[in-house]
Amino acid sequence: MPIRIATHIPTLKLRRVAIDTYKENVVYLHRDCALYRSEGFQALSKIEIHQEDNGQQIIAVLNVVDDENIIQPGQLGLSEQAYAQLNLPEGTAVRVVHATPPQSLRAVHRKIAGERLSYDEYLGITQDVVENRYSKIEIAAFLVACSDNGMDRDEVLSLTETMVKTGERLDWGEALVADKHCIGGIPGNRTTMLMVPIIAAHGMLIPKTSSRAITSPAGTADTMAVLAEVELNPQHLLDIVHQQRGCLAWGGTAKLAPVDDILIAVERPLSMDSPGQLVASILSKKVAAGATHLLIDIPVGPTAKMHDQASAMRLRKLFEYVGDRMGLHLVVVITDGRQPIGRGIGPVLEARDVMQVLNNDPLAPCDLREKALQLAGRILEFDADVRGGQGYIIARDILESGRALAKMQAIIKAQGQNETSIKPGHLQHSVLAACDGVVGSIDNLQIARIARLAGAPLDMGAGVDLHCKVDDPVTKGQALYTIYAEFNADYNFAQQAAEGDNGFTIASPSR
Amino acid sequence: MPIRIATHIPTLKLRRVAIDTYKENVVYLHRDCALYRSEGFQALSKIEIHQEDNGQQIIAVLNVVDDENIIQPGQLGLSEQAYAQLNLPEGTAVRVVHATPPQSLRAVHRKIAGERLSYDEYLGITQDVVENRYSKIEIAAFLVACSDNGMDRDEVLSLTETMVKTGERLDWGEALVADKHCIGGIPGNRTTMLMVPIIAAHGMLIPKTSSRAITSPAGTADTMAVLAEVELNPQHLLDIVHQQRGCLAWGGTAKLAPVDDILIAVERPLSMDSPGQLVASILSKKVAAGATHLLIDIPVGPTAKMHDQASAMRLRKLFEYVGDRMGLHLVVVITDGRQPIGRGIGPVLEARDVMQVLNNDPLAPCDLREKALQLAGRILEFDADVRGGQGYIIARDILESGRALAKMQAIIKAQGQNETSIKPGHLQHSVLAACDGVVGSIDNLQIARIARLAGAPLDMGAGVDLHCKVDDPVTKGQALYTIYAEFNADYNFAQQAAEGDNGFTIASPSR
Repeated sequence: MPIRIATHIPTLKLRRVAIDTYKENVVYLHRDCALYRSEGFQALSKIEIHQEDNGQQIIAVLNVVDDENIIQPGQLGLSEQAYAQLNLPEGTAVRVVHATPPQSLRAVHRKIAGERLSYDEYLGITQDVVENRYSKIEIAAFLVACSDNGMDRDEVLSLTETMVKTGERLDWGEALVADKHCIGGIPGNRTTMLMVPIIAAHGMLIPKTSSRAITSPAGTADTMAVLAEVELNPQHLLDIVHQQRGCLAWGGTAKLAPVDDILIAVERPLSMDSPGQLVASILSKKVAAGATHLLIDIPVGPTAKMHDQASAMRLRKLFEYVGDRMGLHLVVVITDGRQPIGRGIGPVLEARDVMQVLNNDPLAPCDLREKALQLAGRILEFDADVRGGQGYIIARDILESGRALAKMQAIIKAQGQNETSIKPGHLQHSVLAACDGVVGSIDNLQIARIARLAGAPLDMGAGVDLHCKVDDPVTKGQALYTIYAEFNADYNFAQQAAEGDNGFTIASPSR
Repeated sequence: MPIRIATHIPTLKLRRVAIDTYKENVVYLHRDCALYRSEGFQALSKIEIHQEDNGQQIIAVLNVVDDENIIQPGQLGLSEQAYAQLNLPEGTAVRVVHATPPQSLRAVHRKIAGERLSYDEYLGITQDVVENRYSKIEIAAFLVACSDNGMDRDEVLSLTETMVKTGERLDWGEALVADKHCIGGIPGNRTTMLMVPIIAAHGMLIPKTSSRAITSPAGTADTMAVLAEVELNPQHLLDIVHQQRGCLAWGGTAKLAPVDDILIAVERPLSMDSPGQLVASILSKKVAAGATHLLIDIPVGPTAKMHDQASAMRLRKLFEYVGDRMGLHLVVVITDGRQPIGRGIGPVLEARDVMQVLNNDPLAPCDLREKALQLAGRILEFDADVRGGQGYIIARDILESGRALAKMQAIIKAQGQNETSIKPGHLQHSVLAACDGVVGSIDNLQIARIARLAGAPLDMGAGVDLHCKVDDPVTKGQALYTIYAEFNADYNFAQQAAEGDNGFTIASPSR
């Protein structure tokens, strides 16, 4: 279909409207604009904006405005994103027409109908997505059509490859660039902050960037932020990695696999979390970030993301299939996800656990220490000079000798030490055992929820501190955990939630 | 989960922002607003707005603003829809919190996973949708999960029933209220404008409201608008129906099955058109509009919406299953959709065809006349006093006696005659047969596309006038059809499209 730039359509003067519509382009037209009336545009119509001299064009969704302070008839307003993408000065004369749907939407319809898509079709989709040619609802349609078992493993590979191809890709100039990723869902699971200093102290390159918590009480970036600066500019980050062989920074808004960020912006509010999308998201980000060797941690437990060994195994095979074909050296470890790891849940409490382990403090939580050493050991064995099975011993040696602590201190100093010491919240409430017995189970989801209600991760000192774990004997009235909060309202919400369901089951000691 | 109206969160002053975001609530916060910074809201976050005294609350999507002329720190801006829904004066102190996802979204996730939903689950979904608790992407997820064969027929029934239940419902106070609906896709198919005067002249109540064209070159409302006023206020419409026993008005923005309008606002840009959604959409609107007796027209042909008899039959059964259980008297007619009906395509040209038939003009297109009589006959047989098989004869008698024309003139006068006579476009181009032969086929889609490129339906005189139909003999150089347009650019686009593919195939006459 020829693009209809009908010359009888008048031009409009470009105007920047300082509204941040995140990853969706929005265009604003005044209701009295002759064009709006004659062309039959409707609010939420998709519109193509053209500048004829240089052939620039973008697609945006229409909002209609009744206030001349925001936009006047004869003007075309663009949201921040749309203005940045069109990249033309205010006042430029532009024309608008009804947008034709992106070509690749046909492939999405084939996917909705249950058909298999080719590499080229995934490439078409990812290219259109990265160029903002998809509206949010079109992205939602694509995600739902691909969810559950909507993609076979070659399709997951195609999606991963095309997500890497449509963004920038880092090259560290070394043959072994290590990285790790946990699929999440286990409170207190801060192994990364132990593994990075151990691995970097060994001399292996591990330029680790992490996200902030979205639905959990703390992410690695939130916890590291208790100790050091985590928002670093790219050049600074590069320098630190070259000096220290590692870092613990916030991943931020890099241009790596940008399609992933756009898809996640729709996936997250939909709470979509299918295996294919999970694998494509993680592997595309890691490959784009320049990782060559990758360890994936899949915790399994009744309240973990993976409920049983069989589904964890299917996910492992999918990671391996796609990772191998992308040329990644990939190890997938299925770990115990039946309860939280460590004691603290929430940024300050988790940072305390991490520093206890690094300090070889006898009070340090054994499970966190042990898991971090196991996983770090597996990564150290990527080193050709490390004999199979020796990684754990080397990791333990680095930790016990204090070299891991020294490396952590060097990384903190390089990133910028946080001078204000942040303490656990001043409001404290102990949740008590209702009877004698043995801790039978701890519900990851309920404990995470209580910690979030208490204010984590935004209030860094808020959270939950566990005093006993599964199989520990308890007596009636003994404290199972303490809730920490900064604000009364949060404190009350967290207490109420714990009264309703404290997340612990106590089994009879005779069992 | 208790609603978190943390009292340490400051209130914001309500402000109306004159931006029309159609059926999605949008809230505007200034980037320097303390709340935005402290609460970790992100652009596109879903936010709940509360006013504590009266318990009012709405859900909206966040846009972040950098311009104090639009919104100031300390203010909370609401788009037109959101402002109308919250219904509180500007300056009211409100609090905002992260929105919890609507309860019924769990059912949508079960649907995505391929499970069957109950009536109560559809009721939960439609109630949340009508209360604007769903974002567009959540609606898209629901639609994709229900598309193709995602819903069984009892689920289609549940969706239809709950779409009626969540809106208003008209009661005409009569035992027989007739209506008709064509699933669309056939250019020139203006039978409604003939059926309504015939049926109303018989004395049967047929309060027909129609839509404007969205993707076709003309809808019934567009064509009727050539002759009469179609945008009538509800009381006026009611008076006309009671006086004339029928009307031909624009359906407008009634509160009948409002969920349908919200779903369609997402379905249309996605070009989704699954049988289940089609049946739920049509039947919910008709039942809500008070119809008791309904005729559905399903055209079948290679370029119609239904390509073969088998899929038309499946659709018919689905209409019958749901219609019967809703207590509708339903007749589904499968008709010939191999080519356009009548000659004119575009509002003025189609109005001309209709008036020729009503005037018993010998030049009137036979196929349009015949189809309208057949369908009107089927509706007349809903009348207990009409013997089975006699409907057609009665309809023909009403038409030939001039009573249909008189009724149409009375309806036009009641709705308000259009005084300015609108003519076919002054730019005219004949598309010629390239060889001798017989017209083998006419492509509905390509002819509709050419008529739209020529400017229909917005330019009422634009369109296509067919000079021959399937099986007509043609000689090389004979005009197959004429393109009418008002503007040069449209004229050129339509011509170019016809040069690429004129929509006709000419078969050898020997066949």
